[in-house]
Amino acid sequence: MRITIVKIGGAVIDSAERLEQFLTKFASIPGAKILVHGGGREGSRISERLGIEPVMINGRRVTSGPALDVVTMVYAGLINKRITAMLQHAGCHGACGLSGTDANLMSASRRGPLDGVDYGFVGDLKPSGVNSRELTAMLERGVLPVVSPITHDGHGQLLNTNADTVASCVARAMSEAGHDVSMVFCFEQPGVLDNDKKVIPAISYDRFQTMKYDGTVNGGMIPKLEGAFAVAADGAAVSIKMAEDVANPDAGTSISI
Amino acid sequence: MRITIVKIGGAVIDSAERLEQFLTKFASIPGAKILVHGGGREGSRISERLGIEPVMINGRRVTSGPALDVVTMVYAGLINKRITAMLQHAGCHGACGLSGTDANLMSASRRGPLDGVDYGFVGDLKPSGVNSRELTAMLERGVLPVVSPITHDGHGQLLNTNADTVASCVARAMSEAGHDVSMVFCFEQPGVLDNDKKVIPAISYDRFQTMKYDGTVNGGMIPKLEGAFAVAADGAAVSIKMAEDVANPDAGTSISI
Repeated sequence: MRITIVKIGGAVIDSAERLEQFLTKFASIPGAKILVHGGGREGSRISERLGIEPVMINGRRVTSGPALDVVTMVYAGLINKRITAMLQHAGCHGACGLSGTDANLMSASRRGPLDGVDYGFVGDLKPSGVNSRELTAMLERGVLPVVSPITHDGHGQLLNTNADTVASCVARAMSEAGHDVSMVFCFEQPGVLDNDKKVIPAISYDRFQTMKYDGTVNGGMIPKLEGAFAVAADGAAVSIKMAEDVANPDAGTSISI
Repeated sequence: MRITIVKIGGAVIDSAERLEQFLTKFASIPGAKILVHGGGREGSRISERLGIEPVMINGRRVTSGPALDVVTMVYAGLINKRITAMLQHAGCHGACGLSGTDANLMSASRRGPLDGVDYGFVGDLKPSGVNSRELTAMLERGVLPVVSPITHDGHGQLLNTNADTVASCVARAMSEAGHDVSMVFCFEQPGVLDNDKKVIPAISYDRFQTMKYDGTVNGGMIPKLEGAFAVAADGAAVSIKMAEDVANPDAGTSISI
């Protein structure tokens, strides 16, 4: 089956206008598709209002028990259901909001302390933890999975997982299951930009390393590109790009090893 | 298909111990089943912490925009995913947390002002708004729907719906779709109690009216029983009971017209 997997993050989710524009374009993509979303600033806002201080290390959120409750509420509840309701309105009646515990879609393992940092209730997901059989059955029935990055450990514990990791693991798992997968990391820029702010049509892993070294890419862009390259490195027939316009095949930056 | 629909409310959800006991029993019910859950005190607690005052009229929550966000987060997010993760742990790998917007399962209409009371973003659901075709397809594939009482209007707006109403509409819709439905309203008592606190094995609509009049049933019990009688009044072949022990066919109080 030909499957398009799109990942959206904070900047798209945080702007009602951008989100609506995105969803209209996303709805127009033909064939089987999966949407993976992150959380955006809403999670931090709710945390602050509840008196839970957000802690970030290397661009990743440290997830205490109360912080896990917030991301579960905001990512798997508020944002997931808002997006799904908007997709229903856009005519995608198969849109179905799901987390990793739903139909056992994504089993992760809780991350142990790394370099002295306890990440809390953070789940590390691998492609083998993605239930590609169930996702395939859903797509065959016309379901459009809208996936939030909350996973579980199979022992009743929910876990917070990086949304880029979720998107890349889903893509790799679906590719391994024999599907023809193309992937778009949708973000707030028309593509990966060079120093003159022009879109780079294609970017290799070597060039990425140089761009990391000279600071052209930094901060939250690094895990996004690493996620994209992890899919590319898998050697699977997954076409990958980073773009703002998900419906235009010529837009954005292609990622390849 | 033979289908058991179980509704749980606040007292079961609010106690981790009771919830675990319930889910163990629920998991042991053979055959196709659907779990419908309400919110419990967690919604009110989070509202208070966010500075949103909960307003109740006739046992029903008035839902402002911020209050809708809270119920969506807490019901469709936190509680729904916690229950689903616990069911996965109990071996129910088909457990799948869903709201009414997911796969267009439940379309409701926003309630207009009634008796001068604006209920806000409250959705009135009818059995015809339940997507019994999709629920049937899910059950046939071994999915165990875990349903939160958040519906949508089909135009992108999420709505808060009474969980007892959700349970009874799902039961009526599945019965109308030709299934053999039995329903259990699970609550914190072994059944409907008489004035001597003994379980009444069966209760008719006439007796319910008398019990309402003399105050034997009151408060939150009234919408629960009304929900149960609404299913019974439908004339469909739905067997209904109210019980604490959902796995014991002899426990609880049977409801009939």
